[in-house]
Amino acid sequence: MNKILLLIFLFVNTQSFAQQVDETTVKTIFDESLKNGKSYKMLEQLTKKIGSRLSGSPGAAAAVEWSRHVMEDFDFDSVWLQPVMVPHWVRGQKEIGRIVNTKKMGTVEVNVCSLGGSIGTGPEGISTKVIEVKSFEELAQLGTKNVQGKIVFFNRPMDPTQINTFAAYSGAVNQRGSGASEAAKYGAAAVIVRSMGLNVEEYPHTGGVRYKPEVNKIPAVAISTKHADLLSKLVKEDKDVQFYLETHSEILEDAPSFNVVGQINGGEYKDEIIDVGGHLDSWDLAEGAHDDGTGCVQSIEVLRIFKAMGYKPKRTIRAVMFMNEENGLRGGLKYAELAALHKEKHIAAMESDRGGFTPRGFTMSGSEAIKNKIRSWKSIFEPYGLHDFMQDGGGADIGPLAAQGTFLLEMLPDSQRYFDYHHTPADTLDKVSKRELELGSAAMAALVYLMDKYGLK
Amino acid sequence: MNKILLLIFLFVNTQSFAQQVDETTVKTIFDESLKNGKSYKMLEQLTKKIGSRLSGSPGAAAAVEWSRHVMEDFDFDSVWLQPVMVPHWVRGQKEIGRIVNTKKMGTVEVNVCSLGGSIGTGPEGISTKVIEVKSFEELAQLGTKNVQGKIVFFNRPMDPTQINTFAAYSGAVNQRGSGASEAAKYGAAAVIVRSMGLNVEEYPHTGGVRYKPEVNKIPAVAISTKHADLLSKLVKEDKDVQFYLETHSEILEDAPSFNVVGQINGGEYKDEIIDVGGHLDSWDLAEGAHDDGTGCVQSIEVLRIFKAMGYKPKRTIRAVMFMNEENGLRGGLKYAELAALHKEKHIAAMESDRGGFTPRGFTMSGSEAIKNKIRSWKSIFEPYGLHDFMQDGGGADIGPLAAQGTFLLEMLPDSQRYFDYHHTPADTLDKVSKRELELGSAAMAALVYLMDKYGLK
Repeated sequence: MNKILLLIFLFVNTQSFAQQVDETTVKTIFDESLKNGKSYKMLEQLTKKIGSRLSGSPGAAAAVEWSRHVMEDFDFDSVWLQPVMVPHWVRGQKEIGRIVNTKKMGTVEVNVCSLGGSIGTGPEGISTKVIEVKSFEELAQLGTKNVQGKIVFFNRPMDPTQINTFAAYSGAVNQRGSGASEAAKYGAAAVIVRSMGLNVEEYPHTGGVRYKPEVNKIPAVAISTKHADLLSKLVKEDKDVQFYLETHSEILEDAPSFNVVGQINGGEYKDEIIDVGGHLDSWDLAEGAHDDGTGCVQSIEVLRIFKAMGYKPKRTIRAVMFMNEENGLRGGLKYAELAALHKEKHIAAMESDRGGFTPRGFTMSGSEAIKNKIRSWKSIFEPYGLHDFMQDGGGADIGPLAAQGTFLLEMLPDSQRYFDYHHTPADTLDKVSKRELELGSAAMAALVYLMDKYGLK
Repeated sequence: MNKILLLIFLFVNTQSFAQQVDETTVKTIFDESLKNGKSYKMLEQLTKKIGSRLSGSPGAAAAVEWSRHVMEDFDFDSVWLQPVMVPHWVRGQKEIGRIVNTKKMGTVEVNVCSLGGSIGTGPEGISTKVIEVKSFEELAQLGTKNVQGKIVFFNRPMDPTQINTFAAYSGAVNQRGSGASEAAKYGAAAVIVRSMGLNVEEYPHTGGVRYKPEVNKIPAVAISTKHADLLSKLVKEDKDVQFYLETHSEILEDAPSFNVVGQINGGEYKDEIIDVGGHLDSWDLAEGAHDDGTGCVQSIEVLRIFKAMGYKPKRTIRAVMFMNEENGLRGGLKYAELAALHKEKHIAAMESDRGGFTPRGFTMSGSEAIKNKIRSWKSIFEPYGLHDFMQDGGGADIGPLAAQGTFLLEMLPDSQRYFDYHHTPADTLDKVSKRELELGSAAMAALVYLMDKYGLK
């Protein structure tokens, strides 16, 4: 064997040996998560002992303390809080939505809920006609003369033929986020938005409304998909149908809160940081199991798995519980601000905020070279059912790190069930499969391990 | 351009045009299933109006009538029943399992259920000591002197580190199927089998026991995983712990029942049949939503989708509701027997019996040439999340057709949640995601369409 052949032989064998080591390590990670995992136990505590945790609420404060204690109990190298001021919105007493004096059904109570950040109608309520539209273009065509003083009902459904339900969400969610300000331009009294869900359901989905500063704030509610269909039918049958809306939500002064960070120090390259995170806050209507309890416990579990298997990372690995993703992103912004202030070098940040379902891959955002490096590890993930490394995307909370050159990733679980629960009272622990959650934790740990071992140069 | 180049050009363009037509047709199939699908509505009727449907039960008879009417109402070209005699086993009154006189806890009631096909203890019950084993080898080593007169407790769990939960099931289910006869060889009085589930749960999982003709039949029950852990602990702490078991199940005379078949006639090759099926019977403890209501409604939906989109198949397409998969396979055997008798040519048979979860691919059984032909269509399925066409396997009900040279396929959904519900009272409609179910129906229809269009030569 000549020298060149020998070198090729050694190179190939080294490559193959390294691949074997990686496969064995990744198997150890999955075994640890599936046999001894703490993801589900943690999620049970977060959802059942604490429950809902909207920014500024007692639940959010309890979740901060809970996650600090959990990470301290796991004996991470350091655990600390990052103070951050957050919006403080309260729903107030139960909303009333009532279709009044219809010809066929008389008066019908419907299920509505204030959108997060919305002003309330106050106890006097609003009683007026409803005008249904499917788009902002349709609204603009109607103009002030048709809209003035009425309730605008945005009723464009999510498109069920989109296989990725997040694409269907993207195609409809501008109604919820911007509908109020669009309608206010034409003098609307309030807006009712069809819930962001694909099923016909009883319960409405909340979520944030964003008022434009240049127009009046008007009350905004979501209506359940079932009652959206009913309202649409009644409005078509009877042009004079009236709607009574009463909501009591209020925007209070900003409140103090915290991101919670746990860390395992790196050995060789301590200054290079890899983040893995989820958001600790949830909407007020539910336990926030899939959104985003799962992302939080999976992030903590990544570090716990490393400790349990005795893996000493080369780089510093951080689990970050971001506060206020749902209605402000203040935690994500604060985290990036502090990273810049302290001249920290965040080489990669991974987020899990698409629910605790069977992991299918990772989205990525950053240089093509790094994407291709990560894609070269795909065969290590395929035995665990992860096959999709082609989609773009990071995550909301880690987004502000992009400006610092951080490579962003988001865990990509199966998306089919997410919008059955998202922002609703149905987002509870029993909707989470223990194994699906654990597979997600393991997949995240496996990719963090590979990024830590090989770096991202 | 010379003639050879022209031919190559035409060939490539024809190929690419055909691929485009297929992609468009497959999109139409998915759109129909997701927008106008009847899968979920059908499943709602089958689970909520009929419910459990063990072979020989009134539920099974009602399910036969229901599926006949559904397919007639969809105006399939023909719908008929195939008479078949089925085993008739009844559970009788609720089972009693009791750990008696433990030192620490006194007497403890535990959740047990007779395995399907088991004889009962009768009203006098059995009260004796429990001996725990993990394998048949361990049982054999203990031998008659340790086992005689005792209750053998098979407590080897499913392996949580198997990513495919069906592999974990295969690794444990011999305890349920053959444990009773193995234990009877050594004179055991009865067997208790750890439920085939991966979670710690309250409820036991039933399932079939198969007695060997050469040994005595002894009562066999499943115990919930939660109580299996408890029993194991108490038996270890206290060698003298006794167990009281009382079950009332009975094996009655075989009963008349039916497979239900619906058909759309082929245009060009009417004699070539493609089957798509699920099993209509379920265990008695639940609604049989995932097992296998989903397979039944998906199979009917394949034909309904073709009719709705105006697709006239070249070959004859049949939806087959098999009877008695759970405890006898009589329906599958009868179907193959009649196919042979009538000299029918079944070129392919597809089954769905792994639950109505997000489809990930198809297993296949038959010639490598056909497998590779089907794998060449993989890129058409990838946009819908199906990527796994490499696993071997057909399905229980269509298995008997293999001897006639039929190519077999089984839809391969995500497996993580299946054994949370399988054979338990938790196998109910609310555990089925409408979209996941509809994606499965569409995936099956898409592959049947391609097999129909191109044949399997």
